[in-house]
Amino acid sequence: MTHQAAIALGQSLRVLATDPEESAAQIAADVVLGDHRRLADLRRVVDGATVLTFDHEHVPTEHLRALEEEGHRVAPGPDALVHAQDKLVLRRALADAGEPQPAWAEVVTATDVASFAATQGWPLVLKTPRGGYDGKGVFVVADESVAAELIERHGVLLAEQRVPMVRELSAQVARSPFGQVAVWPVVETIQRNGVCAEVLAPAPALPDEVATAAQELAVRIADRLGVVGMLAVELFQTPDGVLVNELAMRPHNSGHWTIEGARTSQFEQHLRAVLDYPLGSTAMTAPVVVMANVLGGAAAEEGWAGPSLDERLHHLMAHWPDVKLHWYGKDQRRGRKLGHVTALGEDLDGVRARAAAAARYLADGVVDPAFAFDDEH
Amino acid sequence: MTHQAAIALGQSLRVLATDPEESAAQIAADVVLGDHRRLADLRRVVDGATVLTFDHEHVPTEHLRALEEEGHRVAPGPDALVHAQDKLVLRRALADAGEPQPAWAEVVTATDVASFAATQGWPLVLKTPRGGYDGKGVFVVADESVAAELIERHGVLLAEQRVPMVRELSAQVARSPFGQVAVWPVVETIQRNGVCAEVLAPAPALPDEVATAAQELAVRIADRLGVVGMLAVELFQTPDGVLVNELAMRPHNSGHWTIEGARTSQFEQHLRAVLDYPLGSTAMTAPVVVMANVLGGAAAEEGWAGPSLDERLHHLMAHWPDVKLHWYGKDQRRGRKLGHVTALGEDLDGVRARAAAAARYLADGVVDPAFAFDDEH
Repeated sequence: MTHQAAIALGQSLRVLATDPEESAAQIAADVVLGDHRRLADLRRVVDGATVLTFDHEHVPTEHLRALEEEGHRVAPGPDALVHAQDKLVLRRALADAGEPQPAWAEVVTATDVASFAATQGWPLVLKTPRGGYDGKGVFVVADESVAAELIERHGVLLAEQRVPMVRELSAQVARSPFGQVAVWPVVETIQRNGVCAEVLAPAPALPDEVATAAQELAVRIADRLGVVGMLAVELFQTPDGVLVNELAMRPHNSGHWTIEGARTSQFEQHLRAVLDYPLGSTAMTAPVVVMANVLGGAAAEEGWAGPSLDERLHHLMAHWPDVKLHWYGKDQRRGRKLGHVTALGEDLDGVRARAAAAARYLADGVVDPAFAFDDEH
Repeated sequence: MTHQAAIALGQSLRVLATDPEESAAQIAADVVLGDHRRLADLRRVVDGATVLTFDHEHVPTEHLRALEEEGHRVAPGPDALVHAQDKLVLRRALADAGEPQPAWAEVVTATDVASFAATQGWPLVLKTPRGGYDGKGVFVVADESVAAELIERHGVLLAEQRVPMVRELSAQVARSPFGQVAVWPVVETIQRNGVCAEVLAPAPALPDEVATAAQELAVRIADRLGVVGMLAVELFQTPDGVLVNELAMRPHNSGHWTIEGARTSQFEQHLRAVLDYPLGSTAMTAPVVVMANVLGGAAAEEGWAGPSLDERLHHLMAHWPDVKLHWYGKDQRRGRKLGHVTALGEDLDGVRARAAAAARYLADGVVDPAFAFDDEH
């Protein structure tokens, strides 16, 4: 999706991929095969490039520092990026800045967990500081014995209060090296089994003052950390306001709706920012935009006897001519993010029903009778 | 731009390019270097492909027939495509179908031209039947001696009445092999020196009955010729209605506005059609959409001492954050289509002024004081 934006801007994108069958490697003109954990491979990518940027957080900080020392531009820089890589580093930085976040503690023994639980109560949340995504590395723990086992396995963990969450929000902001920022409307993200299933833009019925507070929080974090590029601030909405869950410093699933739903997509904006171009308008293109992920479902199972992917795509396009498809060209596996769909319109219920039904049909080959044949289209 | 659409649909695009520096070759993953006039090169492109399609009209008809005989799908097929390749073939087909077009004659001698002029008057228009584009191969001829010279040089020509033109319109339609059609609003195209400079969507103040007649005409032509993919019907609007000027059977400059301006772009729709998928919604995303081409201007000249391309892009993005850029990555030369910009909004004058000023700034490095610092943004 970044390559689509790069094409419009007349930019040449070089991609580091571990396998030629990766989505980006299938469609980019300039592909370097290698491992993002090997400095030598990273050097092959940056050779002659204007800037190095990312579509995940897993490039080791020390390699990025080495590349900067060798004179390469890295955006976001390692000192910013580490806050999206390491949840303990983030918690400390937010505490220093006095920003709202769940109660937390660094825990290295079962006793540490017990003393944290003494003030916050069970169940609590234990997280691996690094490497988690899509619910991996996050454990809701109800008692000390499970906690002890996790500590044993992982060493250092981040303990967090289980917050009285109303829902999850995401505030996206882009920041240029010059310090220009651009914010999109705050969105609601709906997770299923720890994985983002839907994004509603703007977050329905979000009071203006909470939305503004979330946007200002995102801008403050971007400024304080010196982010260059996209920053998605994942938030817990509680009865008392918003708390920071975690950060992504790249185009993020919670911003895919911007491709059709905003005048400037997060992908274009990320490129503008890391290339130090002025940022584009973040105005929405419709009152309501809903993105639904296509997570590998029944149709991704071996022995699936229902309509083939090609047949499902035919039916999808015939049934929802206004729904926009993004298919990533990955092997189909259960639970895997295989693509997403976006619907736009005036009426949240109708738009959401179209997006959800289209995504579910692609995943499972079934049309939900509750919202398939409504009057929306 | 077709590759951008292919990425979203999860399709793999293989490109035939004559040079690795061509725009498409710079950004596509699968590039075959070769000549579209050589059957052997075309065979390398179609090997293993689902369908062969085009972004220009210059592939020889006989090669396409040969590929079809070898079992390859070609869309649009050669029998349809020839009407976009050969203006005499088009004129005959439209005459057979009784569709509105300028008075015309096939001329092979100066006497033929003189007898056509006897009924239609001077000046008249002489066109080479094949190979013309962007005003090339089109001659407005005021007397017999110039006509004789052109006949001498070109052999067979198409003579056309110089129609009492109000303006030029374009009606875009996509047609699938199944026969499904999708039409966009009719647009006005504004030419300068025979080259498209601006496209206004929808065509301002076009009476509904003329718009509908133009759309129906485009659908009839697509059906009758068996077009598969995009068809742009370029029209002359006269006081008495519309006349067909010429056809393009591919995504066309007059449809670039659809990338941001319609729910389904002409590029996505072309792919859907040639892949035999159902077509997408053609609803507009804003009341007014204006596309302006960036034609190489003063800034493309040798010795240009004004702001560099990179500086101009900076200023463009800073000054018009809502204007969408498409930069083709070509060498800059005077008169060459180097890219285009699209503006969207409510108010034609304001939207058009933004698009025109942005395009002119990129081309010439000057901001037109008449519409640069208005209140539109």
